[in-house]
Amino acid sequence: MDRFRMIFQYFQSNSESVMNGICGLLALASVKIYTCLDFSCPCLPHYNMAYGLGIMFVPPIALFLCGLILNRQSLVMLEEWRRPQGHRRKDLAVIRYMCCSIMQRAMVAPAVWIVVTLLDGKCLICAFSGSVDPKKFVGFANATLAQAQEMLSRVPCKEDELMRNSTSRRAVSRYLRCWSQALGWSILLILIIAVFLARWLAPCFNQAALLQTRHWSNYIDIEQKIFEETCCEHSRLFAHQCILHFFESMRKEIRQHSFDLPREKEG
Amino acid sequence: MDRFRMIFQYFQSNSESVMNGICGLLALASVKIYTCLDFSCPCLPHYNMAYGLGIMFVPPIALFLCGLILNRQSLVMLEEWRRPQGHRRKDLAVIRYMCCSIMQRAMVAPAVWIVVTLLDGKCLICAFSGSVDPKKFVGFANATLAQAQEMLSRVPCKEDELMRNSTSRRAVSRYLRCWSQALGWSILLILIIAVFLARWLAPCFNQAALLQTRHWSNYIDIEQKIFEETCCEHSRLFAHQCILHFFESMRKEIRQHSFDLPREKEG
Amino acid sequence: MDRFRMIFQYFQSNSESVMNGICGLLALASVKIYTCLDFSCPCLPHYNMAYGLGIMFVPPIALFLCGLILNRQSLVMLEEWRRPQGHRRKDLAVIRYMCCSIMQRAMVAPAVWIVVTLLDGKCLICAFSGSVDPKKFVGFANATLAQAQEMLSRVPCKEDELMRNSTSRRAVSRYLRCWSQALGWSILLILIIAVFLARWLAPCFNQAALLQTRHWSNYIDIEQKIFEETCCEHSRLFAHQCILHFFESMRKEIRQHSFDLPREKEG
Repeated sequence: MDRFRMIFQYFQSNSESVMNGICGLLALASVKIYTCLDFSCPCLPHYNMAYGLGIMFVPPIALFLCGLILNRQSLVMLEEWRRPQGHRRKDLAVIRYMCCSIMQRAMVAPAVWIVVTLLDGKCLICAFSGSVDPKKFVGFANATLAQAQEMLSRVPCKEDELMRNSTSRRAVSRYLRCWSQALGWSILLILIIAVFLARWLAPCFNQAALLQTRHWSNYIDIEQKIFEETCCEHSRLFAHQCILHFFESMRKEIRQHSFDLPREKEG
Repeated sequence: MDRFRMIFQYFQSNSESVMNGICGLLALASVKIYTCLDFSCPCLPHYNMAYGLGIMFVPPIALFLCGLILNRQSLVMLEEWRRPQGHRRKDLAVIRYMCCSIMQRAMVAPAVWIVVTLLDGKCLICAFSGSVDPKKFVGFANATLAQAQEMLSRVPCKEDELMRNSTSRRAVSRYLRCWSQALGWSILLILIIAVFLARWLAPCFNQAALLQTRHWSNYIDIEQKIFEETCCEHSRLFAHQCILHFFESMRKEIRQHSFDLPREKEG
Repeated sequence: MDRFRMIFQYFQSNSESVMNGICGLLALASVKIYTCLDFSCPCLPHYNMAYGLGIMFVPPIALFLCGLILNRQSLVMLEEWRRPQGHRRKDLAVIRYMCCSIMQRAMVAPAVWIVVTLLDGKCLICAFSGSVDPKKFVGFANATLAQAQEMLSRVPCKEDELMRNSTSRRAVSRYLRCWSQALGWSILLILIIAVFLARWLAPCFNQAALLQTRHWSNYIDIEQKIFEETCCEHSRLFAHQCILHFFESMRKEIRQHSFDLPREKEG
């Protein structure tokens, strides 16, 4: 019992580490889903961009909402916000701190998805292959504009017979992948620099206030957990008393009624 | 309970070993990312160098910042630096020691990335294939300078029809890979010699001072961990008292109201 | 608890076995790096020998220094050597024994690398293909000396069009690989005989002195580890006391201020 109590206590006291774990699992899941997904560009002029940008931006929205749903702290924050004013005063800074930490954790998985799709490059090639200037590539020199558009829209499909073994297909594909990876690394770098500044510059300003806010946000979390446990314990005791009371009264009733029954059963 | 406490204590007391583990994982991750990344040189004269050097130097910056962000000691150091002067005097040597150890650990993963890209050679071939002197290779003898430049920029793309099965493409590629690997091994050797000198010469100088500094940096880390744990414990006790108080007063209220209810429930 | 403590104690007491493990891992890593490395000889007259010999001898130096850096005993030895003379007298034999065992372990991985490169033969073919006497092979009979040198420098590149499907290329290559493997096996045999003699003849001489030296080198290692652990334990106790003191004084301050608050909380 002591062993399990200690593990529970560990996870209860460090609620932040559990949230970090969930956030990391979501990020891993987003990478896993992307690699498992059979991404196949339609290679039709009017569908390419919608499909490519859809794959790039719809799953991140879903992952962001998942992150908000799975985060236990979001409920704690909402209840703290809506609770009636009691002896403990409501501190807006605590609610803001909790909101910030929830948002930050929920945005990790979408950011990972977008960066992974950009580093892979397939989505961006599918979305923007029709927007490339055909004059930049030698293969489209002796084709009309409509033909070039048709050919460019088929760039993402390797097996298409119009473009199979075509050097210009590979050139366009390489050009777009280069842009996609450059964009992906830039976004990643910007995000990491932002996180770095937020983490290294925050302690240089109001460190004491931040520590106090963090302590109170932790306190609210712990209070709610202990309240739930105590409620459970309390209702179990109450239910126990009720059921004992019911059996007591049932025994009394049986005893009262059994005077009407034949005497064999009672013995 | 004792077993888990011992593991926790092990990880808590040896914070350095945890940091070493994180640093090793980052280094492995950098190798893994490089092997997973679909590196495809654009083979366009003005993009090659930017893309090759970008892949070689942007991820190391990101990895370096990641190393600083993930290192728990960096926060400890910042808080030690910013804390108000109390009874324990602030020692600059301790902060310098912590800063050094953080920097060293953060620089492992970027160094691994750069050495791996140089030993692989693709990035350097992509970046500098256009800068090779075409006179050194027989294949470009009867080509104008512009043609030679165009051909050289396509050296990294094996499947390009202009250069497919061309011996000069392979010769340029081999020449650049040879330089790349030579550079990679040289950097690796220099880094290892630097680490070796730092580790073997340090004890020959002020060994006692170093040991003392290390002990104090360890002490600060432990102090902060125990402080956080005690805060958590303190707020749990406080929440417990508050909730017990709430249930006590609730029971009183129920008892007061239950005069209106039938007497059976109260018993 | 006992189980984990036992594993920890095993690794702590048997420092030699940990060192053996690290030494074996380094040897495996050297083989792994060699097989992963994309070795491509430049096939240019002035670069071949530098590249071949560089690949053969630069990594072993790096591996040797890595072996010294990773070996925890090297620091123990340096500190034993530099420590001030106390009640325990400094024994030069112990330091010499530790130095020997460190050197032996650090030399395993470089020896493995050199033997593997020689048994594989590519490096030696690349380095010395230009130094072969062309008169020995029929293919170079009707070529001038400069032509022969040019052709010989391209021997390591299979796909080079000058030498493709050439019988003389294969003959030179076979000849050099034969020498390379002969050298590799010879070095391996000499090393194994040396180890064998060192292990079988050493106990025939001063066995008692050797055992005593080994015991003392072991003692120094254990002493330092227990010292570090005790330091950690000591600073944990000290931090605990400091924090308890802080909370005690905080409680007093709260009690003093709480005269302004309603009396219910205080009870």
